[in-house]
Amino acid sequence: MITTKINQIKVLENGNIASPKGYTAGGVHCGIRKTKLDFGWIHSNIPAVAAGVYTLNAFQAAPLKLTKNSIEKEKRIQTVVVNSGIANACTGNQGYLDALETQRLAADKMGIHKDYVAVASTGLIGKTLPMEKIKVGIAEIGEANNSSAENFEKAILTTDTVTKHIGVQVEVEGKTVTIGGAAKGSGMICPNMATMLAFITTDAAIEENALQQALKSMTDCSFNRITVDGDCSTNDMVLALANGQQGNTPLNEHHPDWSIFLEAFKFVCEALAKQIARDGEGATKLIEIHVEGAPTERAAGQVAKAVISSNLVKTAIFGSDPNWGRIVCAVGYSEQPLDPEKVNVSLGNINVVKNGVPLEFDEVKATSYLRNEEVQLFVDLQNGKEKALAWGCDLTYDYVKINASYRT
Amino acid sequence: MITTKINQIKVLENGNIASPKGYTAGGVHCGIRKTKLDFGWIHSNIPAVAAGVYTLNAFQAAPLKLTKNSIEKEKRIQTVVVNSGIANACTGNQGYLDALETQRLAADKMGIHKDYVAVASTGLIGKTLPMEKIKVGIAEIGEANNSSAENFEKAILTTDTVTKHIGVQVEVEGKTVTIGGAAKGSGMICPNMATMLAFITTDAAIEENALQQALKSMTDCSFNRITVDGDCSTNDMVLALANGQQGNTPLNEHHPDWSIFLEAFKFVCEALAKQIARDGEGATKLIEIHVEGAPTERAAGQVAKAVISSNLVKTAIFGSDPNWGRIVCAVGYSEQPLDPEKVNVSLGNINVVKNGVPLEFDEVKATSYLRNEEVQLFVDLQNGKEKALAWGCDLTYDYVKINASYRT
Repeated sequence: MITTKINQIKVLENGNIASPKGYTAGGVHCGIRKTKLDFGWIHSNIPAVAAGVYTLNAFQAAPLKLTKNSIEKEKRIQTVVVNSGIANACTGNQGYLDALETQRLAADKMGIHKDYVAVASTGLIGKTLPMEKIKVGIAEIGEANNSSAENFEKAILTTDTVTKHIGVQVEVEGKTVTIGGAAKGSGMICPNMATMLAFITTDAAIEENALQQALKSMTDCSFNRITVDGDCSTNDMVLALANGQQGNTPLNEHHPDWSIFLEAFKFVCEALAKQIARDGEGATKLIEIHVEGAPTERAAGQVAKAVISSNLVKTAIFGSDPNWGRIVCAVGYSEQPLDPEKVNVSLGNINVVKNGVPLEFDEVKATSYLRNEEVQLFVDLQNGKEKALAWGCDLTYDYVKINASYRT
Repeated sequence: MITTKINQIKVLENGNIASPKGYTAGGVHCGIRKTKLDFGWIHSNIPAVAAGVYTLNAFQAAPLKLTKNSIEKEKRIQTVVVNSGIANACTGNQGYLDALETQRLAADKMGIHKDYVAVASTGLIGKTLPMEKIKVGIAEIGEANNSSAENFEKAILTTDTVTKHIGVQVEVEGKTVTIGGAAKGSGMICPNMATMLAFITTDAAIEENALQQALKSMTDCSFNRITVDGDCSTNDMVLALANGQQGNTPLNEHHPDWSIFLEAFKFVCEALAKQIARDGEGATKLIEIHVEGAPTERAAGQVAKAVISSNLVKTAIFGSDPNWGRIVCAVGYSEQPLDPEKVNVSLGNINVVKNGVPLEFDEVKATSYLRNEEVQLFVDLQNGKEKALAWGCDLTYDYVKINASYRT
């Protein structure tokens, strides 16, 4: 176990979505992808309080519409099923019927109400689901021989190169509650949700509205602060389940331990978001940008997103080139209130711009710093007290390679 | 001579900024760049009515501030001087003093009022101008041995691979008036102006306000509709000069020939914008997107810009991959009013999506179409009567290569 800076939060070694009490997860190869696992599930032993946030793309995929309706109706989810390979987006009425059929069959298999099943898909847009293969996957839900969080993590991947997971523990009313998470990227990642799927489970008891609020606000400062290519997909979704198996008084904003729980929840969201950014298509580096001195938290976030989304910044960092002019330029077109003559910029701890004008700095040292696998950029607007973080990755030959031939 | 569809407009062979009566142009190597020409000028034999549009980047470069002030004060420009290699942006007070000195020295050399000199710079951000070298350039302004529009076109380039120029003629009051243009790209090109410089000259007489209005509105549907990488630079500027040497009654919106002049002016802006997009960093293809059926022209423009700016669309076109899902996805996150179930998409004349759902189409034929050097994409929102065009280029290995090592 690792104890974080926020010393009440314990990070579990190999923590995952099945770490909290009462959850199982698994994944199989049902045949949509050539050989990789492509169908996964999470199951709670009782219906869990559920919350979701969904892509703002006008072409929201069928499974999202369905899941959103079910969660709004019942505020509970017991089983989550996910397929990779085909996104079931832009598939019209047939797509919705296929999502509905998936939900119904999974509910039958698990013997639960259909609205207790959440459905998610990720992959190619515009193809309908091969329902015979989906049925092969559904038949395996909950079967012990395929059950492991790792199988689930693998089954939801598309162009990702590594699985993404996290598990933490905090004390609530003296009870140890666990929060687990899994996610996938890695293209079409942008500040307003992406081809990203993320799932968070906890054995804490939480009130419905409190969980929805926590998920919304923590998504805003984690998943909505990452970018790989600025594209915002049709299928992005974050789901959170809280099954209350630790038996605490249901958490809400008035609970004395709410803030510590929220910190742990935020830690999980940030950890998954950073894992997605680091594994962006073709990425060799994680870029973390800190913006401070903004008049509002929103303004700080917009500046951070402008910098982290800039192709020119991303290619410069790929080339370990301390071309800070591109950072300044992105700050300048972020359309946020700022005084160019107050802006400071640093690459790691190397100050390169003070009050809008360049400083002399050691280029060799700066280039050497940018060769790290994790690069931190700092922008101080000196125009207020608010701050924000954002994460992204470098833009590389491999990004172009992956995306010039995704289908072929 | 080529006669365009709009049959009153004649496109001149090798037309350029020196084609209109009373203008000369030239360029020299003053020493900022290693061997390439890096200092250019345009000169009108009398002060010309002048208009300008400038980058919206908060870090507007010193020469832009200076030129903007001079044009606002006098509404006249007689000489334009431009250096490439160094942008004189983020250079604080010293940068402004250097721009001022450039303006003053150029005015002395040409024997004109300093506010009749426009100054522009393009290149690396954060370095101050080497004034000794600038002086070498200024000494050459107007000297016959370096005078040619081609020298000017070369002197303003940075990562561009080709010069950009155009010249057209139309009849105004029975007189043949000429409009010429020159421009440079090619990185940091985005929908709100870019590291782009464009210069338009004409021998027509135009009223001050009419010229400013024409330049603003034509920039909005040409230079502001191109994107290479979505970055909006500190130095973007479009200047228009009208010296009235044809002696027509000064044009304004009430003049009977205003609309034909405006069409020709638009043709020049679009031609330069397309030349910039086609020569985007690393580009192998020009992408033209037509959006129709939008409730407003602005909405159509926003949708077009979302598609043309998408890294995923740009890489798919580089790979000649008819992955229309990425086009639909970009339409969906453009945040414009649309009904997903009404959207049609075509690649050239190959219909791929109708009413939001995919059509069967010949993939081989589509791939073959996308191998062209000019690719046209069509999106019909079926949600109104307005339309817009935008231009961009594919995202290639060479874009990454150029930008990962710009300085080194």
